[in-house]
Amino acid sequence: MKQSTKAVLCLLLCLLFIPIALFAGGEKEGITVETESQVEVYKEAKYVFLFIGDGMAMPQVNSAEIYSNAVASQDITLRKLAFSQFPVAGLTTTYDASSFITDSASAGTAMATGHKTLSGVINMDPGKTVKFTTIAEMARDAGRKVGIISSVSLDHATPAAFYAKVPSRGEMYNIAVQMTESGFDFFGGGGLAQPKGKKGDQPDVIDIARAAGYTYVNDTAAFKALRPGAGKVLAINPALQDSAAMYYEIDRKPGDLSLADFTGKAIELLDNEEGFFIMVEGGKIDWACHANDAAASIKDTLAFDAAIAKAVEFYNSHPEETLIIVTGDHETGGMTLGFAGTKYSTFFDQIAPQKGSFVAFNTEVLGPYKEKTAAKDARLEDLLPAVKEWFGLDYETLADNEKEQLQRAFLRSMGNEIERAVQEDQYLLYGGYEPFTVKLTHILNQRAGIGWTSYSHTGVPVATFALGVGQELFGGYYDNTDIFDKMAQAMALTVAVGMK
Amino acid sequence: MKQSTKAVLCLLLCLLFIPIALFAGGEKEGITVETESQVEVYKEAKYVFLFIGDGMAMPQVNSAEIYSNAVASQDITLRKLAFSQFPVAGLTTTYDASSFITDSASAGTAMATGHKTLSGVINMDPGKTVKFTTIAEMARDAGRKVGIISSVSLDHATPAAFYAKVPSRGEMYNIAVQMTESGFDFFGGGGLAQPKGKKGDQPDVIDIARAAGYTYVNDTAAFKALRPGAGKVLAINPALQDSAAMYYEIDRKPGDLSLADFTGKAIELLDNEEGFFIMVEGGKIDWACHANDAAASIKDTLAFDAAIAKAVEFYNSHPEETLIIVTGDHETGGMTLGFAGTKYSTFFDQIAPQKGSFVAFNTEVLGPYKEKTAAKDARLEDLLPAVKEWFGLDYETLADNEKEQLQRAFLRSMGNEIERAVQEDQYLLYGGYEPFTVKLTHILNQRAGIGWTSYSHTGVPVATFALGVGQELFGGYYDNTDIFDKMAQAMALTVAVGMK
Repeated sequence: MKQSTKAVLCLLLCLLFIPIALFAGGEKEGITVETESQVEVYKEAKYVFLFIGDGMAMPQVNSAEIYSNAVASQDITLRKLAFSQFPVAGLTTTYDASSFITDSASAGTAMATGHKTLSGVINMDPGKTVKFTTIAEMARDAGRKVGIISSVSLDHATPAAFYAKVPSRGEMYNIAVQMTESGFDFFGGGGLAQPKGKKGDQPDVIDIARAAGYTYVNDTAAFKALRPGAGKVLAINPALQDSAAMYYEIDRKPGDLSLADFTGKAIELLDNEEGFFIMVEGGKIDWACHANDAAASIKDTLAFDAAIAKAVEFYNSHPEETLIIVTGDHETGGMTLGFAGTKYSTFFDQIAPQKGSFVAFNTEVLGPYKEKTAAKDARLEDLLPAVKEWFGLDYETLADNEKEQLQRAFLRSMGNEIERAVQEDQYLLYGGYEPFTVKLTHILNQRAGIGWTSYSHTGVPVATFALGVGQELFGGYYDNTDIFDKMAQAMALTVAVGMK
Repeated sequence: MKQSTKAVLCLLLCLLFIPIALFAGGEKEGITVETESQVEVYKEAKYVFLFIGDGMAMPQVNSAEIYSNAVASQDITLRKLAFSQFPVAGLTTTYDASSFITDSASAGTAMATGHKTLSGVINMDPGKTVKFTTIAEMARDAGRKVGIISSVSLDHATPAAFYAKVPSRGEMYNIAVQMTESGFDFFGGGGLAQPKGKKGDQPDVIDIARAAGYTYVNDTAAFKALRPGAGKVLAINPALQDSAAMYYEIDRKPGDLSLADFTGKAIELLDNEEGFFIMVEGGKIDWACHANDAAASIKDTLAFDAAIAKAVEFYNSHPEETLIIVTGDHETGGMTLGFAGTKYSTFFDQIAPQKGSFVAFNTEVLGPYKEKTAAKDARLEDLLPAVKEWFGLDYETLADNEKEQLQRAFLRSMGNEIERAVQEDQYLLYGGYEPFTVKLTHILNQRAGIGWTSYSHTGVPVATFALGVGQELFGGYYDNTDIFDKMAQAMALTVAVGMK
């Protein structure tokens, strides 16, 4: 063949390749390279971040964006978050093996292993006999360093989905023991819900972790002093709030460690030539949304974004080797950005005065009041100054039906027996939360133009954002199990035959 | 240079091109080709479809998917719609010039012209002096044929945004006259809300259209007989329901024309060597969601999907020249796929028995009953057989609070004066709709696990799907004004200097 003919053929072949590569962008699935429909042109992602906003779908993302706008400026042009500016955005279904509404255990399993399972099950099949290998274990076995970070306890479903295999997420002690056996390089953020077991009669997991070679860090100065070469680290925030979780961002005190601090430290410690896989969970977005507390959700989404910004900094100095993926495991609360009472308007600046989370209000105001006040002596007037201070709500400005609803919620929180008997639909009104506090966040959120329909998760697909090497894999509309496949492909990790 | 060197250089160049093309997928914005970050490798899209699901965001799309599953099989694996299988999916913000919650006029203007404006304004600036050129007019001026189809009236905001310029969407007669002046080749679907003006004292728009050279078709046989070469066509469905709109799909009678029929006919008539631009609106998804009627929304979303399937058929025979874009202009109703009362479960099969839309129930059951029954004689028992027949709801199976709520809504619908005085929060409970009917759809939807928070639009971003030549432009997270830019780029249409 003549050289000139070869040149023309090469050109034609390449021109053919380009539209195929473009077309394949949204369709890639599985990690097998099929030369007909897929072209492996990107480099291997050496440094991979998976950020999971628990309970974070588009309403949670967009409410944080709108809040940032409403508080910062009168300009309607939307201010995006660090991660919502990523070049690639996809949509991800979250249903699990038995329900269109997943929980964090089955959703975590789907993303970590590519397998659907039942709600409550972590990295085992619906029959609870087969154990699945996680992407984090595969990364470890390929010589990468691995970090797992969460703002809730480290034995909670989402972080556990990267290292543990249990038939029930409730086995938190078992999960924590498996954490110490993972060999992963960094665990950080919240604490452990059952460090000595359900009854407190088991060996302390912290001791087990130390015996397994982990350096245990539990104070801020020691945390900040950690330097590369520290070895395996288990770093628990000394400031914990509820269920061994970090404080809601809205309640975090100046100087206390943030999710961004843990993310930055993991990057510092795990940066090495073999690469790393770091999973960071913004876990309290979910908890805030379960309680229908928009201010707490928005502030935790912004804290999650600040953690992502740490990864973006790292990406900026390693753009050819880094991949950042940001997704949610499901939506929580049925949050919407519109309420019947505010019609076509939103007033997100109304949320800004909220002083603390529903938990902080319960702990600091309602709890102490209940402690010292008998049901028969309880009067709403007693708490109105606190309501104004904590939620910016002036009782006199409430509509009559809001006043009545707040009064009834107050009586219900105070254990008023008549009110208890009357309200059959208590769960619909308040979930399992303090009636008075839920009613306050409902009223405030509705004033802002935010609605809620559930105290549980919902089934709407989540958004997935990607930046870096392999980002194009994350466009399109695909399933949460595909996140595993796409990560494995981006990291060039091999899945054992029969695993998938 | 040696030929062999040329061959190697060509290969290197092409290999360089592929990752650039892949990388650029999620980032392209604007229609100017910037050689540094963008590579124009796709061909011009000759046949372009823009499908707008009015009020359709991910909850509307996903509820239709889940419904299809729940009714068709017990298999949890999600059945996607024709358009939700498209290879590219993006996210689109919808805020307008003055609100995070847009209306269809400003959203239509954004997509049709690339400009933000105020709610209610069509293709004029917020000062209501400057007029904008639409993508459909640009396509016309470039020699393409243009078709505009809607399931609601053709003078409604979304179709109007492609041909009219008015300071207020309420000027429906003015809009309709501008329709006849557009020179577009095909208008089809619903009718005209004010064919002779608000007071009925203006020249009939149908006559004006005929004088402008349009063939007016208003019966099914004549519609089906239309063949290429028919010239400019104004085809109004002989079967209209409310406000000159086509029937809700759930109410459509066998043999009546569907949105898919209009789409198929437009393709047949407009197919030509210069290409076409066809906009199809699924307008009653929005109307159903305003009334919080999930069954009507889902069925209209499926009818919209069937219309898209017609375009996919055309794409399959012209894959190198066709681009199909599917988006929504905003979300309506604050629909969520989870309800407090059903927690982590959904029961979408509960919706299947619903016999007709809220409008049909009002027209055929509640209206006639109100007509013949004085408020003092009204008894809920009278309507319970119809409730069972139309919504599959057996009164005896309702919870006590549901029974009470239904009773109160019934009294309110019947004009009971005591009930009217008691219910201050009537708008929150029923919007502007028949209280009894809204309460029925609320109860039924909640049983299925579907929640609602508004009778208006909401601000959550919508999803945009794309298939065909230029599809890669529609990945990522971008604004609705970018839809205009991306379409212009895909069609290689030139925007006049200063227009954008």
